[in-house]
This record gives sequence, structure tokens and C-alpha cells, in this order.
Amino acid sequence: MKSPVRICMIGAGRVGKNHTRAICHHIPGGKVVALVDPMTEVRQETALEFGIENQYDTLEIALENVEFEAVVITTPTPTHLPLAALAAQNKKHVFLEKPMALNLLECDAIIKVAGHYGVLLQLGFMRRFDPEFVAAAQRIEAGEIGQPMMIKSNTHGPGLPPPWARDLRTSNGMLAEVNSHDWDTTRWLMGSNIKRVYTEVANFKGAANNVNVPHFYDNVLVNLKFESGGLGLISGVCPCGYGYDARAEIIGDKGIMQIGELKGQSVVVCTNRDQGLITPIFRTWPERFEWAYINELEHFVTCIQDEKPPRAGGVEGRFAVAGVLAGTKSFLEERPVYLKEILGE
Amino acid sequence: MKSPVRICMIGAGRVGKNHTRAICHHIPGGKVVALVDPMTEVRQETALEFGIENQYDTLEIALENVEFEAVVITTPTPTHLPLAALAAQNKKHVFLEKPMALNLLECDAIIKVAGHYGVLLQLGFMRRFDPEFVAAAQRIEAGEIGQPMMIKSNTHGPGLPPPWARDLRTSNGMLAEVNSHDWDTTRWLMGSNIKRVYTEVANFKGAANNVNVPHFYDNVLVNLKFESGGLGLISGVCPCGYGYDARAEIIGDKGIMQIGELKGQSVVVCTNRDQGLITPIFRTWPERFEWAYINELEHFVTCIQDEKPPRAGGVEGRFAVAGVLAGTKSFLEERPVYLKEILGE
Amino acid sequence: MKSPVRICMIGAGRVGKNHTRAICHHIPGGKVVALVDPMTEVRQETALEFGIENQYDTLEIALENVEFEAVVITTPTPTHLPLAALAAQNKKHVFLEKPMALNLLECDAIIKVAGHYGVLLQLGFMRRFDPEFVAAAQRIEAGEIGQPMMIKSNTHGPGLPPPWARDLRTSNGMLAEVNSHDWDTTRWLMGSNIKRVYTEVANFKGAANNVNVPHFYDNVLVNLKFESGGLGLISGVCPCGYGYDARAEIIGDKGIMQIGELKGQSVVVCTNRDQGLITPIFRTWPERFEWAYINELEHFVTCIQDEKPPRAGGVEGRFAVAGVLAGTKSFLEERPVYLKEILGE
Amino acid sequence: MKSPVRICMIGAGRVGKNHTRAICHHIPGGKVVALVDPMTEVRQETALEFGIENQYDTLEIALENVEFEAVVITTPTPTHLPLAALAAQNKKHVFLEKPMALNLLECDAIIKVAGHYGVLLQLGFMRRFDPEFVAAAQRIEAGEIGQPMMIKSNTHGPGLPPPWARDLRTSNGMLAEVNSHDWDTTRWLMGSNIKRVYTEVANFKGAANNVNVPHFYDNVLVNLKFESGGLGLISGVCPCGYGYDARAEIIGDKGIMQIGELKGQSVVVCTNRDQGLITPIFRTWPERFEWAYINELEHFVTCIQDEKPPRAGGVEGRFAVAGVLAGTKSFLEERPVYLKEILGE
Repeated sequence: MKSPVRICMIGAGRVGKNHTRAICHHIPGGKVVALVDPMTEVRQETALEFGIENQYDTLEIALENVEFEAVVITTPTPTHLPLAALAAQNKKHVFLEKPMALNLLECDAIIKVAGHYGVLLQLGFMRRFDPEFVAAAQRIEAGEIGQPMMIKSNTHGPGLPPPWARDLRTSNGMLAEVNSHDWDTTRWLMGSNIKRVYTEVANFKGAANNVNVPHFYDNVLVNLKFESGGLGLISGVCPCGYGYDARAEIIGDKGIMQIGELKGQSVVVCTNRDQGLITPIFRTWPERFEWAYINELEHFVTCIQDEKPPRAGGVEGRFAVAGVLAGTKSFLEERPVYLKEILGE
Repeated sequence: MKSPVRICMIGAGRVGKNHTRAICHHIPGGKVVALVDPMTEVRQETALEFGIENQYDTLEIALENVEFEAVVITTPTPTHLPLAALAAQNKKHVFLEKPMALNLLECDAIIKVAGHYGVLLQLGFMRRFDPEFVAAAQRIEAGEIGQPMMIKSNTHGPGLPPPWARDLRTSNGMLAEVNSHDWDTTRWLMGSNIKRVYTEVANFKGAANNVNVPHFYDNVLVNLKFESGGLGLISGVCPCGYGYDARAEIIGDKGIMQIGELKGQSVVVCTNRDQGLITPIFRTWPERFEWAYINELEHFVTCIQDEKPPRAGGVEGRFAVAGVLAGTKSFLEERPVYLKEILGE
Repeated sequence: MKSPVRICMIGAGRVGKNHTRAICHHIPGGKVVALVDPMTEVRQETALEFGIENQYDTLEIALENVEFEAVVITTPTPTHLPLAALAAQNKKHVFLEKPMALNLLECDAIIKVAGHYGVLLQLGFMRRFDPEFVAAAQRIEAGEIGQPMMIKSNTHGPGLPPPWARDLRTSNGMLAEVNSHDWDTTRWLMGSNIKRVYTEVANFKGAANNVNVPHFYDNVLVNLKFESGGLGLISGVCPCGYGYDARAEIIGDKGIMQIGELKGQSVVVCTNRDQGLITPIFRTWPERFEWAYINELEHFVTCIQDEKPPRAGGVEGRFAVAGVLAGTKSFLEERPVYLKEILGE
Repeated sequence: MKSPVRICMIGAGRVGKNHTRAICHHIPGGKVVALVDPMTEVRQETALEFGIENQYDTLEIALENVEFEAVVITTPTPTHLPLAALAAQNKKHVFLEKPMALNLLECDAIIKVAGHYGVLLQLGFMRRFDPEFVAAAQRIEAGEIGQPMMIKSNTHGPGLPPPWARDLRTSNGMLAEVNSHDWDTTRWLMGSNIKRVYTEVANFKGAANNVNVPHFYDNVLVNLKFESGGLGLISGVCPCGYGYDARAEIIGDKGIMQIGELKGQSVVVCTNRDQGLITPIFRTWPERFEWAYINELEHFVTCIQDEKPPRAGGVEGRFAVAGVLAGTKSFLEERPVYLKEILGE
């Protein structure tokens, strides 16, 4: 049996805690040896919950004090490039949360530094590790529904994102922070790059939530045209209040496929015939994608042990960022935007 | 186009009103020409709603005053024999609600009088006319799930039955008044007569509902052994409060089939992620079996016009009554009871 | 009881036959007294099936030979104006299938002539009479999901439309012939007019189906921006092969609502664990909207008897045509199109 | 962080492999240090798959050669007592698969020896650790559906059990080997012991499968009467071919609750409208109860580390065996059997 991969977690917030839990509770192949976060309170809480002794303010200090082979970066997007670069320069493999970066220059820099120092780079596109999405992708690949003609993919989340994540200037907004997965998933399942996008946005709850940043939106619909000729839709609503909702529907020339559903746990109750049946919904993303998070981190650990490239890497991260930029440009300029305007090809 | 069949409705209560509505609103081939019910208030309300001019206290008076070809009898079980006999003697075709009668002697008398006077006799087993049950039966017949090995059939109803319908002495209780359909459906779908039954009953709500009749029960499970060797279950809960619930599940040696579901209308709502998704349930039997009621009465009308025997007649009604009697004897004597003890064969 | 409304059916094709069946079998308040269609074979087949004695090549001849109060027009779109006008001029109430007409001038002419002669005009927007859509609309209106922010509505049909219905010049294509209902439904459920649309189309099956008309498409996604600020999506796929698929999903600021589902009849079968569960899908539109068709025609008959305006009239038909024209202009010109460009306001 | 619990797996067959996988892949708190099985081939295959170096023919040899704190016993039922006793005498904590034993004397002996040597004893009732069953139990306990009146619980499995497991003399047959969970689950969720049972069995596939042991059955329905007055049903079909099917439905005086469903993965496909929608079913028990198996073994490890008694122990195992014996006696003697006849109280 291979010895566990020693991992330094960078970021102790919601996603960091989720990934720490996955590794500590369900991935014997990985071992969390340090936790980095400048926010002392959050860091201590997470460290306490999972019994992590080594805690540091910065990755620099961690590198000086503890041995590890890999980092898992879950900090805000603007920090991705500097942290990934520092890790790579110190020969640490990098697991990087989505979105990869704020722009393509940063994406390119991350890809380059990882390549230069020969470390693995995996992006946090956990839907590629969700048992349902994986099975669906294999069945589409096998031709079960024929050539994909149309895809609809949605991510609706219950809560208002933090301030940095709703400001276009610091995060590229909801299309990046909430819908990154949809950009990757639609491209993956359609088997084609996006050619052109058109975006409509709406702001229904900003005022009530005291959000005053320019161009804020909490509803978005993006119309996609793929290079294959296929069509697509990305839908985002955040905050939506009613739950965490991530589904996809693909129509091929031979048939339709639906992935996921609103319903969570199969426990149905009815106590009042005027109200009707009640079934749990997925309340949060950790509930919906529990296995996906375990599987993606297990994959990361296994890739390190086996010295194999991860399934979702820098290229996938870069295409998703390009989509975000085109989608944002579209609603700002009220016109369809070609991906080549962004990619510069 | 054939001229409409003139029909005298006997019984203006819930079932009578339901059948009157089906004929008046959705069956151009039938025409309600009279309504009989000794309860003046109920009768006038139903007559008013559907614009029926001829109203009478008794079938005798109706026979003297208005021309018709058929009757639809929806009165309490003890009245079935005298009303069906009088109708038959006057050459009126008979649609008779379930249960057919209180005992086999009455069943035999009804079958005999209808045969003697050459009138059609149809029993109100509307599940045999429900699109889902009909499709299921045809698919089982075609061998889709192989030889039926096991069936589970349930009827759970929301409200407490009227006093006469919960007293064994006047109605044979819930097994007759609520579960008559299950006796017929299980025999129909299994393609076999019942050989032996064992019944357990429970009384959870009687006291709270001030029901003091002997042997009252509001929960029942009947274990069935068919002559084919197959097994079965009939389940009854009434009042159950949560809605109207009638489903069946059949397992053959090649597979499983489920008929019906708890869910009613496909309108799903979620406004609170802690509560979850809410979907309508069937509140009442008219909602669940809307098409079945229309179809069975249309079938009755068409059989009269075409002079053909109806699909569910006296034989089916008699077998269901035999099941009720065996099932009741079983829990009273706390032992399995053979159908031949009842049928005397 | 009111005497039945005498109706002349104009059009004996699939929709005409469907409406004739609804009236003859399930609407005692209406009476089909004549059938008009220049295609002798189709007409005779429909007439024979429903026992209609009076058959004519044209409405003119029918008007000379039989008495009736209303017409039901189900002929191709280009004939709508002349037929509706002739009927109105002869004081016949008009039930007109969707789409209302090819352009707004025709819509205006139909509205004007009906108004001038004082006849009722009802459009065949049967989703407004579907029990699920009706319940959904009432619940949205009652505020159950708050202010509508986003709607997705789709109509995917199994078969290739006839030649005239896939040529933009004779029919406005799929957006008109298949998606007319979505234009009406989204406006109805959002409680707002559409402000701007952007359309992407794809042609995946045209070549294989020998369809060579210019601008043919068999997949379409329309992005909608409503005057309320809300967003919308109309999705069309035809032919899709896999079944008839019409669903809607609305997200309000308080929650989500889903109307309809892929699943048809509740009969689930599994005979092979490697294949999985099999559930019927709706094969065709008459299966999915059986009650909607009965209800809309019953409504038409009742409106005539009670001299009340129908729920879906010329205004609704005109808005749907405007949407079709804007949606078509959008993909032809590859840009977002404002409804005011079409409506000229 | 506590050091991992060292575990010796006893049994390398299907269940043994499943539990080994759960521990090796997803439970960092446990460490498989040895594998015991006299069947060399099966043992080596499992050892190879999970990289287990220490392999032995018997527990005796394992005890002499390797250090461990606990055993997981997944061997055939007749071996449970001797293996559990030997483990306990050597101060090893015992995780024991269901059914606990062949009779109550063996159950009592296991409970006694574990108590005498102060080791923990956990039974493999994994449904008590399934997220859906756990949530359901908590909600019932909290009164959500009121007092439980009726429960239906089924376990249908796809394949023919091995010879020893279908012979009443060596295993107590299907009621023990397949339905053990239902005996435990019904008692747990109803919050009451069983008072009386009545069983019907059928043998539909024995001949085709060349099963000639006396009293073989492949279909069973057990009617339960609880001490609380409630009713219950246990249903077993094995082999059923169509998949692994374990669901429960509980009706309380305030409402109904359904736990689990036939449907597995949420990937729905339709490519043929005449066939309909296809959804995966659970093919096997490891698929259906993946989390339950992980959770129950994690619970075992945690109980050892924290020195706390497991949630499902000897008492639960003994009651399930008593149910099996009463259920078997009932169909052999064709009469209802009281649990006190078995328990001797």
C-alpha cells in the first residue's frame, strides 16, 4: 500500500472545510498535515474540528515548517495565481478550486508554472467526478443519444455570495463564481468548444440585499452556440433561496438525457392532503455533490501516487474562464460575443 | 349516431353525484332523465347542480313517471338486491356500485334476476377502466413480466366512512366498503382465484372518532394465497387523513410492475429548502380515477347501445364479496380461511 | 339544460380529428353538424369515424347547406384570415388554432372582423386549459413563488412537420408551428410582455430528411427579456424522435415551480437490472394535453351559450405572432431584437 | 487524532470484499491488517485487490501471527457463534454480519461471551446507518407522522442464494438470509416488538433452478401484528432478477412516509417513444447501501476508539432471529405463530 500523500490545505472557509472533511473522513490515501489561512478564527475552527495541529497564516510559513507533497487551494480567485505559482515553485502538486483565475493571462501563467516545475495541476470541476455526470458522459460518448444537439445546464444556489464574489471587478461575478461548472460541463458533454454566447441578466434582489456594485445581477441566462453547430443554455440564479439546484439535460439526434433532479433524499412524507407530498431538496452543494468531492480529491491523491495527469486540468479551467469573459462581455455590450474575441485566435 | 341511453340515477350522494357529473359533462351517449333518492335535501342539491327535472323518492315512482332504459345504483349495500331486482323486473339495465351485496345469496339473486329478465349487469369496478390499470393488465397478459408471483394492492382513504359502512353487520366493514376494488384487482391482475386468506386488523382511531361498534377496525392487512400458487397483499387504512391512495405492485417471474403513484398533479414547488419539494397528492377518489369513472359509464352506455355484456359483471362482484367474507372470518377467528369455506365448493 | 352548440369543423387533419373526437365523445354541450375539408379522403375518414353526415369541400358550401353557430378552424396558417373572416361575416363564432396568422396585419384583420360582427374569437392555446398549467398559473398569481424572475418553457415534438410548416415563407417555421404555445405561456405565467429576444438555431436533421428550404432549423433556443426585468427561455426541437415533451419551470423570488414532466402514464416496469426501469413517455400531444383539449372546447361552447368572451382571444394570439416574428428576425440578423421593432410602438 | 483500529477480516466473499473495500477506501480510522478465509482462491483475490499482506486459513492462526483489536465476521451463519466466541475470548471486538445465528441459544451464547470478555458486539444491520433510514427514523421518533399504525418493508434480491443459504436446515432460508433487515427495520421504525406473525410462501423458480431442498421458497409475505397493536408486512423475493429492491412505507395516525425508491442513479434517457423513459435501478445491495456500509463500519471503529456500545448489537440480532423462527414455523404449520412461542416468555 502506498504511503499517504501529505497535503497542505490553503483556505479554511466553506470549501476548504468541505475538502478537509472529505480527505480526513473518507480518503485514507491522503493526509492533511497543515492548514493555511490568514483568518485566525476560521482557521482554528476548522483545524479543531479535524484535529490539524499545524496551522499557518501563509503558505510561505507552511513551506518552511512542514513537509508535504501537495496543496489544495480554496481561497478567493484573485489569490489563485500567486498561491499556485508559489506551490509549484516549491514542487508541490496543486489542486485549485474553480474559477481558475480572473483572466486568461493568469490562467496561462498558472499552466506555465505548473508545467515548468513538473507538478500536477487539477481544477476543482467536481461534476466530472460525480457518479451521475460521469455515467452520463460515458453513455453520451458511447453514442446512446446520438450526436448532442442541445444542452441545458443550471446552477442555482441558495445564498448571497460574499461581497468579493458578486463584484465583476474582483471575481467576474455569478457567471464565474456560481456557473463555472456549467461552462465546463456543457463543453465536456457536448464534446465541442463554444463558438458564440449571448447573455441576459436580471437583478431582482440586489436592492433588498444592499448590493450596490455596478452591473450586479442575480439571474442569468446564457445562450450558447457550439462549434459543432449545437446549442446550449447556462442558467444561474443566486441567491435563489429554495435550495441548491444543479441539473443538466442533453438532447441528441437519437434521444434525450436528464442528469440529476431537484429531489434529494428519498424520504417522502404526506400528513396533509391539502398540502401534498413533501420530499427533501438538496439544501447545499456539499449534499448534492458529496461523492463528487470525495472522488475528485481521491483522484488527485491517486494521480500523485501514480504520477499521472489529472482528468480536469489547466486547459479545462482556461476554457471555463474564457466562457465567463465572453458571457460577461455579451450582457455588458448587449450583443452576441464570439469566443474568438476572447481567445484571440 | 345512436340515440342517447336514458338513465335513472338511484342515489344522490357522493358517488351518485360523481357518476351524474361524468354522464352529464362527458358522456354524450348517456342522458340522465331522473334522480331517485329518499333524502330530499341531498337529492335536490344534486338535481339542481345538473339540471335534472325529474326527481323521485323511490324507484317505483320513477318507473311510473318517466321513460328510461337503465339505472345507476349508488345506494348503501343492503339496498342493492331489492333495487337491482326491481329494475331488472322492469327491463332496465343495471349499473351497480360495489360491493355487490352483503352475502353470496344476495349476489346470486341479483345475477339470477338480471339473467332472467335479460338485462345487462355491470359492477362499479372502475379500476378495470382506469387507463393505467388497463394498460398494466394488457401488458401482464402479454407476458411482459412473466407469470405473476406476487401482488400488493392498497386502498387508503382520507375520511371516516358513514356509520352503516363501518359496522360489520350492515356493511361487512372496510374490507367491503373501501377494499372491494383490491379484491377484484388482485384476482384480475394475477389471473387466478384466491385460495386462502389471513387477515390482521387494528383499531387506532375508533375511540377518538367515537366509533363503538363491535370489531371496528381502521387498518387491515390481508395475506392472500392464490390458486396459481401466487401470493398477495391487500392493505386498507381508513380514515388515513393524508389523501386518497390506491396503488398496485406486481412481481412476475420476469420482472416488476408498479401501477399508480402517490403523486397527483405534476406541479412541484419549493419555497423553503428546509421544508423541501411539495407535490400535490390525490385528495379524493374522484381525482385519482376521473377517467376511470367516465370510461366505465361510457362502457355501460355503449354495451346497452351495442347489446354486449359489460366487462365487469356479476361474477366479478360475487368473487369480491366472497373475499370480503373470508377476510372478515379470518380476523374474527384468528386463523387462515379458505375461500372454499365461503364458496362451499 | 341549454341546447347544444352546433359546430362546423373546418379541417379534418390531425388537429381537426382530435378536436372532433373531444366534442363528439366528451362534450355534450357541443354538436358537430358538419365537416369541411377539400381533401376528400382525409375528410371522409374523419367523418366516418365520428358519424358526421354533412361533409363539404368549402366553408361557403357548408354555410349554404347546414345551420350552425360556430366554427372550429384547424387548417394551415395562411388560410386562417380568409376562413375566420368568412365565418365572422356569417355570424359564426370562431375557434381558431394557433398560430393565429402569418403576420400582425392578418392578426389585426381577424380581430377587427370578429369585433365588427360581434362573434366570439378563441385561440387554440390549450395550455391555458390544462389542469396543471391552470393550477400553476393560479398559484403564481396568488404569490406562492413570489415575483417571477425566470421562466423556461419547451416544446419538443416527435415528427417532422409537413413541408408548408417548415418553410419560413409559408409558416414562420418551428417557432410558429411548434413553439406558439411557449410564446403564450411564458407571457401568461410571467405576467409581463416580452421586451427583447435573442435566438440561436441549428439544423441537425434537415439533410437526412431532405429538407432544403432556406433557413430551415430543427433546434432553437430563444433567450427572452421581459418588460418586468425577468428572463426567459423558449426551447424547440422538432423532430426530436423521443416523444412529445412540453414542460415549464418558473423561478420567483420566493421559490421554484415545475409544471409537467417527461413521464406519462404511471406504469413502471423493470425486467432487466442492466437496462433499468421503464416508464411511458408522452408519445404525442393529444396524450399529454387530453384534458386541455376537452376543456378548451368546452370553454368555447360555454362562452357561446353564456355569451361571455373566451379566456384566450385575439390579443393573446397577436402577441404570440409578434414573438415569433422577433425570434425569427433575431437569428436571421444574428442580433437581439426588440419586440417594439415588430409591434411598431 | 486517534490511531487507526487494526481489523482482521474473517470471510473474503462478496460481503467480506464489500466491507474490506469500505474500510480500505473510505475509513481512515480503520486499518485492515489481516484476511482470514479457508477458500484460498477467493481470499487471495480479495487480498490482492486491497493489498492485504497477512492472509490466513483460520482465525486461530491469525491470532497467533498479527496484532489487531477487532474482527469483522462475514462467514456463513453456522460459523458465527464459534468465530465470535473465539474472537471475544481473545479480547477482540466483534462486528458480526446478519443473521446473528441459527437459533436463540446461539444468540444467547454470543451475547454472553461478548459481555463476559468486555468486547463490543455490533450486528451488520446497515439500514440503521443508511442516511435515508436514519432520517426517517428520527422524523418518526419526532412524531412527524404520529403513532405508527402500519409498516411495509421489502427486500427483493436479484440472484439465487448459495445452496447453504436456501436450505432451512443450514440457514433458516430466505426469511433469514435475505429478510433479516426487514425484521430489524420494522421493529425499529414501529417502536414495538412483534407479537404474532403469519407467513405465506411460494416456490416459482425452484424447479428451473434445480433446487430440491424441502420447503424451499422464493417468494414470501409475512403479516405482522405488533405489541403496540400496529400491523406490518415483510416481503421477500429472491431471485427476482429485476434488481435489488429494498424499500419501506410507514403509515402513522398523522400521515404516510416512504423510504427509498426503485430508481437508482438520476440519469434518465429516452431514445424511443414507444419504449419510454429508462432510469437505472439499483442492481445490487452494495449500490443501494453504499453509504450505509461505510457508516456502519465507521461507527464500529469509532465505538472502539471511544469505548462506547454500538447502536445495533446482540439484542437487535436476537429479536431478528426470533422473527425468522416464528415466520418459518408459521408457514410450516400453516397458522399464525406468537413470538412468545419462540421467545418462551
